[in-house]
Amino acid sequence: MCELLGMSANVPTDIVFSLSGLIQRGGYTGPHKDGWGITFYEGLGYRTFKDHQSSYHSPVARFVQSYPIKSEVIVAHIRQANRGNVSLVNTHPFTRELWGKYWTYAHNGQLQGYRNLKTGNYRPVGETDSEWAFCWILQQLSIKYPKRPSNWPAVFRFIASLAGELRKKGVFNMLLSDGQFVMAYCSTQLHWITRRAPFGMAKLLDQDVEIDFQQHTHPDDVVSMIATQPLTGNEDWQRIEPGCYELFHLGERIV
Amino acid sequence: MCELLGMSANVPTDIVFSLSGLIQRGGYTGPHKDGWGITFYEGLGYRTFKDHQSSYHSPVARFVQSYPIKSEVIVAHIRQANRGNVSLVNTHPFTRELWGKYWTYAHNGQLQGYRNLKTGNYRPVGETDSEWAFCWILQQLSIKYPKRPSNWPAVFRFIASLAGELRKKGVFNMLLSDGQFVMAYCSTQLHWITRRAPFGMAKLLDQDVEIDFQQHTHPDDVVSMIATQPLTGNEDWQRIEPGCYELFHLGERIV
Repeated sequence: MCELLGMSANVPTDIVFSLSGLIQRGGYTGPHKDGWGITFYEGLGYRTFKDHQSSYHSPVARFVQSYPIKSEVIVAHIRQANRGNVSLVNTHPFTRELWGKYWTYAHNGQLQGYRNLKTGNYRPVGETDSEWAFCWILQQLSIKYPKRPSNWPAVFRFIASLAGELRKKGVFNMLLSDGQFVMAYCSTQLHWITRRAPFGMAKLLDQDVEIDFQQHTHPDDVVSMIATQPLTGNEDWQRIEPGCYELFHLGERIV
Repeated sequence: MCELLGMSANVPTDIVFSLSGLIQRGGYTGPHKDGWGITFYEGLGYRTFKDHQSSYHSPVARFVQSYPIKSEVIVAHIRQANRGNVSLVNTHPFTRELWGKYWTYAHNGQLQGYRNLKTGNYRPVGETDSEWAFCWILQQLSIKYPKRPSNWPAVFRFIASLAGELRKKGVFNMLLSDGQFVMAYCSTQLHWITRRAPFGMAKLLDQDVEIDFQQHTHPDDVVSMIATQPLTGNEDWQRIEPGCYELFHLGERIV
């Protein structure tokens, strides 16, 4: 399996603290050693740093930790391979364009019978069930909405129905973003937390690191984090119920 | 305008020496200070490092120079903005999927009247003439070859005819790769060189750096470099004639 990490914020925010926790699970405190990746949106653009090496041993991971990129939307993933080799082409997150926006996706789980799903113009390049499912979701969206839609909550409701179909084929925990919204669909396990004033202390579970968010934030900041398993021990992470999803926009949970 | 840098090799090869020369031109020896990017193919996968900062001042550039990623195909670009803001979304190279392969593209030049070009399912996300032209090329390819073709030299001949159309709208120097082939289309200026045994010394024009390739290569290695302007002063770079292209595969020029 794998682990997911996502962020939605109302101001460009760095993710170094949370990422430090996740990276430990990629080959040190956890078995997710088969590559890792992180996508930062900056405006309409994005950049992805990825490595087929374990995050714990990855020079790219060390660089990203030392260079705090500030972003309003971040999607990250550490991989424990089940379907598909350990290689860059199979490393999440995956990003594709739809309606003139970049969509970024990461998956935790495993699917059966996914090769019957038609992906149309969105052809998988690698060998994973994950990328195949992403291509199918995009293809279904492009059929349902041939033109760029404007009712985004309705679009994400439709995506949740597609995720529900995928969940029938196995385990399908997903993070998905268009650079503005962050959607977290839970098949088995996914947690979230929203941090806002008054900010307090947080302590990582996977590393002896503590942060005082009050030192690093403005009173108006709102930042939501999503993770497969809670990253901190002293905060109140919420569990998403299996078969349900949460939608975040500018740090706030809106669904 | 901008500068392009490409590589095709028959063994995974690092580009640190040449990249060091290019990076100087991004804000130090040259005016191309409006962002930079580099895409490395590794197998069917790729990773892109980009920054809207000048390459000369970019922490990402410093990291890439310190971490020699070995690849058989590399496409890089330093930008001097004409159309489109200085932002990540407008930073080259651009990568999109077609026929289940990732295509990577970088452009040097400026186009007029490009907004009449139909891009179909390949919608630009940013504001540049460059990305628009890339989307048009992919759309034209998907119309000409609805199924994945097998005669790749013919595909690149067709792409050259499309590039010829674009050249009528302004200046269109281009690097394009599907991860296996590297195509260099010259509208005004583009140079290339193939390095093979017996390897010799090379000295950068933009920095007081010299390398003895014999120390870093195997006798069977073949590596071609493509650059807007020659990067070394003591080697025999070939100029591509305006309106012509060269195609490289595993380090060898094949057209």
